[in-house]
Order: sequence, then C-alpha cells, then structure tokens
Amino acid sequence: MESEYSSAALENAVAAFSRLPGIGRKTGLRLALHLLRRPVEDAESIGQAIIDLRRNIRYCRVCHNISEDEVCPVCSSPGRSSATVCVVETVRDVMSIEATGQYNGLYHVLGGVISPIDGVGPDQLELSSLAERVAEDNGIEEVILATSPTIEGDTTNYYISRLLSRLPRKVRLTQLARGVAVGNDIEYTDEATLARSILYRTPFEI
Amino acid sequence: MESEYSSAALENAVAAFSRLPGIGRKTGLRLALHLLRRPVEDAESIGQAIIDLRRNIRYCRVCHNISEDEVCPVCSSPGRSSATVCVVETVRDVMSIEATGQYNGLYHVLGGVISPIDGVGPDQLELSSLAERVAEDNGIEEVILATSPTIEGDTTNYYISRLLSRLPRKVRLTQLARGVAVGNDIEYTDEATLARSILYRTPFEI
Repeated sequence: MESEYSSAALENAVAAFSRLPGIGRKTGLRLALHLLRRPVEDAESIGQAIIDLRRNIRYCRVCHNISEDEVCPVCSSPGRSSATVCVVETVRDVMSIEATGQYNGLYHVLGGVISPIDGVGPDQLELSSLAERVAEDNGIEEVILATSPTIEGDTTNYYISRLLSRLPRKVRLTQLARGVAVGNDIEYTDEATLARSILYRTPFEI
Repeated sequence: MESEYSSAALENAVAAFSRLPGIGRKTGLRLALHLLRRPVEDAESIGQAIIDLRRNIRYCRVCHNISEDEVCPVCSSPGRSSATVCVVETVRDVMSIEATGQYNGLYHVLGGVISPIDGVGPDQLELSSLAERVAEDNGIEEVILATSPTIEGDTTNYYISRLLSRLPRKVRLTQLARGVAVGNDIEYTDEATLARSILYRTPFEI
C-alpha cells in the first residue's frame, strides 16, 4: 500500500505517534505538523527525551518502583523508615501517595492486581518478592495494603494476607481507611462506602 | 524547584510530551509510563521518528508544501498538469484535496490567511512568491482560490486577485464552489450558504 502522505518521514512520525495510547492518526498528524512548524531543536529534544526515558529508567530491585539506579531513591534514602512497607498496584500509586507528603515508609509495587478476567494471576505480580522482603526481616514491622478498593484489589489483599501468614515472621497488616471522600456529598456517596464509614467511625477531631 | 518525579529521565519525557499541543502533564505522564511498559525498541523508534521528521522534511521551493527534496513530489511529477495552481492555506489542505483524487494540477501553500487580528499580514504569507510563479509563466493558465470560506479567507482571495491583476500576464481566477454540503440537512444550513446555493444553482444531474 502506498503511504497516505507524500513523505516517508511524515508517515513514520504519524505512525509513531499513533502507537501511543489515546492518539490516533488524525491527532498524530496534528502533532507532526505542529513539530514541523517549530525549530528543529524542539523535535530533537522531544525525540531524545523519549529515547532516554526508556534507556535510563529501570525498576528498583527492592520495591519495583521506577528508578534510574539499581535501587530507587525511596529505598536508598536514609531518612525513610524501613519499618513500614506500603503495597501498591502501580508506579502512579507511589506518585499519588508521595504527593500527599504523609508517608515516610517504603513501597512495594505489585505491577497490578489479581484479575482472572484479565488473565492476571499471582505469578505475574511481584507477590513472592514481597513475601521474601518480609521473610528476610529488613526491619519490616507493618505492611500497608494500599490496592484499589475493588474486587480485584480485595482479592489481592486477601492473597497477600494468606501469603504473609505462612511466614514464620509476623508483621502487622493494615489497609487504607475507607469512608466518605473529603469534599464529597453524603447524598452521592454509594451505600457500601457509607455503611463502612458508619461501622468504622472515628473520634471527632477539630 | 525540585522535580515532581523521582527520576530526571521521567521528568524530561513528561516535559517533552507536555510541549505538544493538547497534551498536558497528566497525559504526558500516562504516555511516558506506557512507554516504560513497552520494549525498549518501541521508545527508540518513536523517538527517532520524531527526530527524523524535523530533520528530513523541508518545504518545497516552488509550492511550499512539505517535501523531503528541494521540490516536492507533486511539483516534480510529470503526470500533473502545470496549467492550474490551487492556492491553499496549509499543508493539511493539500492533503485534504489530494485525498479526493479529483485534482491533477499543482498547489501553492500560503502558510495561513491575512488576519490583522492575529497579526498576520500579506508579508508573512507566500503571496509574492505566488505572483512570481504566475509572472514567470510556468505554463499557469488558471489559479484556483481554495482558502477557507471565512472573512480572512475572502480577504486573502481579494488580495490575491488584486495582486495578480497587476501582472502583465493574465490568468483565469476561480474559487471553490460554495453551497449546501453533501449529506447536510437544508434545515440546518446557514442562510448565507443557502442564499449562495440558490443564486449559483447548477443544472440538475442524475
């Protein structure tokens, strides 16, 4: 098939953009034509940043968060407490929790949740490496389950609780508080969340 | 300011994506994390395609369409008629007209339209080069004005008609037919277009 555009370089760039999620050929063409109107340095720095991203970033050997070194800045920071490990699904979850500024422990990125429908079993996730971290001690006293409040997240939490209960070493297992979201109307809060927020009510604070 | 992400490579990639139109930092992060989950070759080929795009594409010396050579494939094609030159605003308009398969002449890409509000005057557009092309003969017999049917487009058309009328060589000046769009309801067609479509009605064809 002949290329849709008269230029192979344009065709390649549009095809490249189209391989990114949420970008089709129309948007790809718009982005490519935008770059053509900009100085040559713009396209070079954008292209190089994309190449460097994948070349320079790997996953932390300990917690599987993204990292430029073998061990990520969180795991290697002397200021972080190694007594708590927060188990999350993805790298984005680490960013979200870091953004709160409320957590000073370490992480463990599972890379997803157990989901038979999507063909994701325990072996595809970083579950055995979590058990190893706890079994090896590493000063871990508490594991916080911070997966999404979904059936898959709950299943994964249950799997982890069974996995850790089999270890000779015992750690405290906690999960994120569930309840009414800050700023949300009670009226629009779903029943399951509202029921939990009553059952697990906390002392009133000013 | 400290970087928002723990990795400089990620920060650079998100910043690079954010420089593209319609892509903010959130989408940029989503694209970067997507690339991190793909094989390294994916990011390298996408990055390289963006670099090559800007390095390999320039503008045709004759018609100012995008081209990988000094003269674009349309201008250098022996199969295209040099008797007609279709004046368009942008490279995308060339693509749109080429996609119809109904035009076998040459093009002239203005690079925009005269728009005092946006600070675009005749000197920023490829207008004098159009006059030169016609003045030098080049076998041109007809100039088709195919700018958008807007005030700016009409102003530009008027400017071109004055420009070409001053040349010793006379060419036929035509414009795209305006009327009811194919597939559109008469009910939803604006009055100006409907008025024109009655005034310039054409013989009925089966």
